[in-house]
Amino acid sequence: MLHDTFVLKGNFLFTPTPDQLALHPDSYLLCKEGRTAGLFPQLPEAYRDLPLHDHGDKLILPGLVDLHVHASQYAFRGMGMDLELLDWLESNTFPEEGKFADPVYAQAAYEIFVRDLTRSATTRACVFATIHRPATLVLMRMLEEAGLPCLVGKVNMDRNSPDFLRETTQASLEETRQWLAESAAFSLVRPILTPRFIPSCSDELMAGLGQLQREFGLPAQSHLSENLSEIQWVADLCPGTSSYGQAYDQFGLFGGDCPTVMAHGVWSSPAEQKLMGERGVFLAHCPQSNENLSSGIAPVKDYLRQGLRVGLGSDVAGGAHLSLFRAMTDAIQCSKLRWRLVDETIPPLTLPEALYLATKGGGAFFGKVGSFEPGYEFDAVVLDDSTLPTPRELTLAQRLERVVYLSDGLPCAKYAAGRRLF
Amino acid sequence: MLHDTFVLKGNFLFTPTPDQLALHPDSYLLCKEGRTAGLFPQLPEAYRDLPLHDHGDKLILPGLVDLHVHASQYAFRGMGMDLELLDWLESNTFPEEGKFADPVYAQAAYEIFVRDLTRSATTRACVFATIHRPATLVLMRMLEEAGLPCLVGKVNMDRNSPDFLRETTQASLEETRQWLAESAAFSLVRPILTPRFIPSCSDELMAGLGQLQREFGLPAQSHLSENLSEIQWVADLCPGTSSYGQAYDQFGLFGGDCPTVMAHGVWSSPAEQKLMGERGVFLAHCPQSNENLSSGIAPVKDYLRQGLRVGLGSDVAGGAHLSLFRAMTDAIQCSKLRWRLVDETIPPLTLPEALYLATKGGGAFFGKVGSFEPGYEFDAVVLDDSTLPTPRELTLAQRLERVVYLSDGLPCAKYAAGRRLF
Repeated sequence: MLHDTFVLKGNFLFTPTPDQLALHPDSYLLCKEGRTAGLFPQLPEAYRDLPLHDHGDKLILPGLVDLHVHASQYAFRGMGMDLELLDWLESNTFPEEGKFADPVYAQAAYEIFVRDLTRSATTRACVFATIHRPATLVLMRMLEEAGLPCLVGKVNMDRNSPDFLRETTQASLEETRQWLAESAAFSLVRPILTPRFIPSCSDELMAGLGQLQREFGLPAQSHLSENLSEIQWVADLCPGTSSYGQAYDQFGLFGGDCPTVMAHGVWSSPAEQKLMGERGVFLAHCPQSNENLSSGIAPVKDYLRQGLRVGLGSDVAGGAHLSLFRAMTDAIQCSKLRWRLVDETIPPLTLPEALYLATKGGGAFFGKVGSFEPGYEFDAVVLDDSTLPTPRELTLAQRLERVVYLSDGLPCAKYAAGRRLF
Repeated sequence: MLHDTFVLKGNFLFTPTPDQLALHPDSYLLCKEGRTAGLFPQLPEAYRDLPLHDHGDKLILPGLVDLHVHASQYAFRGMGMDLELLDWLESNTFPEEGKFADPVYAQAAYEIFVRDLTRSATTRACVFATIHRPATLVLMRMLEEAGLPCLVGKVNMDRNSPDFLRETTQASLEETRQWLAESAAFSLVRPILTPRFIPSCSDELMAGLGQLQREFGLPAQSHLSENLSEIQWVADLCPGTSSYGQAYDQFGLFGGDCPTVMAHGVWSSPAEQKLMGERGVFLAHCPQSNENLSSGIAPVKDYLRQGLRVGLGSDVAGGAHLSLFRAMTDAIQCSKLRWRLVDETIPPLTLPEALYLATKGGGAFFGKVGSFEPGYEFDAVVLDDSTLPTPRELTLAQRLERVVYLSDGLPCAKYAAGRRLF
């Protein structure tokens, strides 16, 4: 599959900034060698001979970006929800992840995940696999073949984990190095360092991962300040640090030269927020997971105002839904409750802000991704809202809001990195 | 269509009490003249000649009950969500409801609502129409023909409303009386008195509706303590009353001899809660609407503990979704946030409690509805979860939780009041 050059026709909607919803009805978007190269009200003469994908009156958005999802937890999404984080990990998550030692089970489980991710409006994701190298490579191969340009991590865990899901420090580092070598086989899917979280990674392991990061110039992903019990545990484990974020930072795994995305930040202290800003750390806001595991509500509107880099995560299986449309409305709804019940100085998120988080906000972790501005990688999803009948005449902005709130977000056509997937 | 006598086969799940999930795998449920008459692990000899509806390994739940939905707002669900209650009424709701003066528009709009309600897992609902008698009768006729035993209200509004949506007091009462006479044409669908809320009904109108209630022995529905600005407005309008609830009670429209369901109760004072308990008022908990309109989170678990009568409402279009499964998970998620952020003495709702609210809790407003215990009206929905593949073996309770969290809740078969709808 080579990158294509072609023209897309339809109603284009995107967010150049968090507070700006750009509407281009009945327009033409040029894709040139995998990147957007112009959005026109009429098709310029020079492009009349290019292939035209005419999507009529449908809505076309940038592909959505999921900054935090556990592929290995997809099998138990929507189950065991009546627990908090640490109990939920012990009861649900770890036993399931242990099964991925068996590549046959991994194949069956990941096939369901990749099938559903392919059908969804998500074009890119930061994905947690498990500690198992062979199973992680199975997942990467599937995503590569599906045409989804994801970042995938073999997870590292060498302490505070059940026997069946704990590596020795040395094995964890060696397996990671071998996995990185084998990952070179993929062109679309790339590896991302994935220490599970501070409680499951010893200082020696974190130091070794920091070295690998610098040797290979890798991005990293992990968890940050999700739940109050977890934060207390990290403080107990890392007595010399001033914040959960600093516990990563001391090993060079908190932004800076190491492009880093951290999930949650529900309870990040002012000092931690400041460090995130200084290091350019991305935050994956996962509102549904934060509801399901009784964690709380991250002050995302305030993070946006501070200029922090924020996107959205489904956090399956803390979140039950893969749909980023659902994550958008969850984010808006939670921000309204936080405004009403916790802090009336931080107003709720708006729909354009939520779309920004799900596209350009999270997309920036992948480079120029998440917008139809010139030079952006060509990720697009086409949505058919004629399946939602109404007696009213709707504006484009109303049609967008309705699709976001009502649909499961299954597009009728999808493009990633300039390739049409269906 | 006569009530049927037949046997249903499948996996039955229901909640005799809020904390008890009854599981009857691979069992037989007898429907005798429209009512459940026994649930058996093997089919008794005496019933072997009855028609058998074999639903195999599918899940069978009591039909869900929506205690609060505005049929006339269905056309703009999922739109205009970035507003609070009173602004949202002015900008979105009232202009849309005004259109129902035209029976042609009403026909087109209500057709979409009734089609979607029919397909859903909801078998019964307390429905707001608009102030327009002809359009309300159009809706009642459609629901009757669809086989959905709903309570439907012509809305009353004679003050603080736009000209195009305000009746004179006399016309409101006369139209209501005529509507009640015309409603006698229906057998499955019944009328319910529907003063919109205190701010849009004068004392004279409320007194007249109270008289109609006593004359016809009617149930009533309205709104209660949803939003802080609204509550302040009611206090200003009714200086002699001790609570919003008492503003209804002074006209005999708050429970007691008048079976009453009130939507919301987000901010009900202890005195109002006490009055609800004394009068047996039902509360329709509408968590998604309370999120979307930034109202807050009702302390539903506490209401259950107090023995108050509570069910769930979709509150379309304050809520965007007609699905009561969605309302169940919204209720659980909101209760977790309330526990974490507002009051740790009130624990989150559990999945069985949420199912209870959506079935037997709300069903009690309709009589013996919402359970598979003997003597209950036969409402049932059959759910096919084989469309949600998983590599795991699941228990019945796990399958239920997954269906509630993941599905849009479209059943593959549906029964209401002993009749099979599809």
